[in-house]
Amino acid sequence: MKINGVAYRSVWVDPDDGFSVHVFDQTKLPWALDVLRFTEIDQVAAAIVSMQVRGAPLIGAVAAYGLALALRVDSSSDAMERDAARLASTRPTAINLRWAIERMLTRLRNTLPVDRVRIAYEEAGLICDEDAAQNEAIGRHGLQLIEQIATTKRAAGGDHTVNLLTHCNAGWIATVDWGTALAPIYMAHDAGIDVHVWVDETRPRNQGAALTAWELGSHGVGHTVISDNAGGHLMQRGDVDMVIVGTDRVTRQGDVANKIGTYLKALAAHDNSIPFWVALPSTTIDWTVTDGLSEIPIEQRGQDEVTHITGRADDGTVTRVQLTPDASDAANPAFDVTPARLVSGLITERGRCDASTEGLASLFPEHAGPRRS
Amino acid sequence: MKINGVAYRSVWVDPDDGFSVHVFDQTKLPWALDVLRFTEIDQVAAAIVSMQVRGAPLIGAVAAYGLALALRVDSSSDAMERDAARLASTRPTAINLRWAIERMLTRLRNTLPVDRVRIAYEEAGLICDEDAAQNEAIGRHGLQLIEQIATTKRAAGGDHTVNLLTHCNAGWIATVDWGTALAPIYMAHDAGIDVHVWVDETRPRNQGAALTAWELGSHGVGHTVISDNAGGHLMQRGDVDMVIVGTDRVTRQGDVANKIGTYLKALAAHDNSIPFWVALPSTTIDWTVTDGLSEIPIEQRGQDEVTHITGRADDGTVTRVQLTPDASDAANPAFDVTPARLVSGLITERGRCDASTEGLASLFPEHAGPRRS
Repeated sequence: MKINGVAYRSVWVDPDDGFSVHVFDQTKLPWALDVLRFTEIDQVAAAIVSMQVRGAPLIGAVAAYGLALALRVDSSSDAMERDAARLASTRPTAINLRWAIERMLTRLRNTLPVDRVRIAYEEAGLICDEDAAQNEAIGRHGLQLIEQIATTKRAAGGDHTVNLLTHCNAGWIATVDWGTALAPIYMAHDAGIDVHVWVDETRPRNQGAALTAWELGSHGVGHTVISDNAGGHLMQRGDVDMVIVGTDRVTRQGDVANKIGTYLKALAAHDNSIPFWVALPSTTIDWTVTDGLSEIPIEQRGQDEVTHITGRADDGTVTRVQLTPDASDAANPAFDVTPARLVSGLITERGRCDASTEGLASLFPEHAGPRRS
Repeated sequence: MKINGVAYRSVWVDPDDGFSVHVFDQTKLPWALDVLRFTEIDQVAAAIVSMQVRGAPLIGAVAAYGLALALRVDSSSDAMERDAARLASTRPTAINLRWAIERMLTRLRNTLPVDRVRIAYEEAGLICDEDAAQNEAIGRHGLQLIEQIATTKRAAGGDHTVNLLTHCNAGWIATVDWGTALAPIYMAHDAGIDVHVWVDETRPRNQGAALTAWELGSHGVGHTVISDNAGGHLMQRGDVDMVIVGTDRVTRQGDVANKIGTYLKALAAHDNSIPFWVALPSTTIDWTVTDGLSEIPIEQRGQDEVTHITGRADDGTVTRVQLTPDASDAANPAFDVTPARLVSGLITERGRCDASTEGLASLFPEHAGPRRS
């Protein structure tokens, strides 16, 4: 995607700078477009934990490079397994992280230590290229849904703006490129469809207000930020044509783990007969898990993310303020699970399908066998 | 209710200070317990618009005193009608405001101008006394629900804490005394029941994080602040025994207008078979309205409440920070409507009833006739 006309990916390697790995610091947006430079696994792990690097697909890609950086220090098999486990443990809910690390290990285990750094960079690069290509394909498959709504609204006369609602950030900054949920929206905008996006601010970390709004604004897509409380009301009033979100893990039966609050929007969409779509590369599917509610671990993050918030003060300084009384505790579950019954369908790089065992099996027959433990 | 052992109401008149009207500035909590002193209608109207005075029952009571203050300047019938209309227009959704003003006018219209100031103070005082008494009765009727849950959980063994979830602030600070949704919780706590309250922070104005958490903490009630996104997840996990909220207007058929986001929690409660109760004095019922979704006006507030938030910076200063990119607009509907089908029941000063035409008619037969236009 482009920022001020310059094409970027969300992670890149600089061969002229010792093959260091670069990402944008997502905790600084929208106030600054700071670039982080990683040369060690410690930096990568810390950036994932602190959510300077976030977004399920991006976490996987950056962790893959993190392993490459670790192998530069020690490419023995023991060190590789230890460093891989460390990276995999940085966040518990997103499955792409574990998928990417497992893919790296599968590629690296039967190689000579002397070759591993080169191979790791290659494989991480492939993961990135594939993520970008998958997301572009997701965009094309999702674009058809938006086109259908636009066609229907034009035929009905009146306002033909397609109003979409999204939660959290599943844009290009959360992936290597394009984004998942936002890819169809960018393509619809580029195709001349009049799209407007309701952007849930997405407390407690405000990825919607800070990242999605910034991404959409940078690309020129019309959007309006709303509190997380407002989406149901807008759906009741007929102001939302479709909900589209990303996900951190999808189960074999189509249950969807995503940013906390997604479930509430799915309930409201269902109650108002509004399509609720989930966009994901197939690397987000956990074929080992069936029931999302009982089987997906939900990360509990620090209460300071609820009791405090960061923004820009009137004097221009980025400032953290406390929102709650000193004596009040807070809880901070970071994800929830939307049962498949509330999901209209999944948008993958291979096309769209029902959020069901049968639906996923139709697109991914190689995984359609009995559940593997 | 008591603050540091001193009994307060949320609005009081000081005879030793020219019968000025006093309230707490709710925009300053929890950082400061500032008292506002009103001597003119302008101050009252401005405080309601800015939400220094908020909470449907309290708005009605304070507006009644606002009319008394106005009558001190001009007690003619023309001025009285004009000033009453002005006060009634300060907020569009809460019905108690219109009810209180109408009650004042009904009492005052057939009186001599020379008597009106005295009568207005008397009538406003009666409104306050009745609100406090009604809320105490609501507390008793709601307490029975909490007692039933406590009894059931004790019989089942294991953890017998009663976990309640509330949205926005329907506590004593939102009423003259006791609160509506919080009254049963205070009584349960005082009765020795182990209650714990999940407090929705309630963006954009964070009445939960700032006011409900402060109230509960001041009274010693265990509570945990959560983002508005978290409640559905907690319900899925079995961590919520009952939801209880206040309301700004209830229709004849039991539809409930309340703070934006209430509808989402009602959906989640329904989806997880968790009781969802609404506590209200009967002054909150709009007997002229049947269908809440089509007939209740929803206040649209300024977008700065979404794009900015106020809290306490590390240096102790109360600071406003911006959360969204400069180029991003925001929308700010302040209320939503929860259809009666999602409401387990209503808790009024006369007892509990179904959220339905029949339920309300059973408690308030004097209003059970055909709808009046």
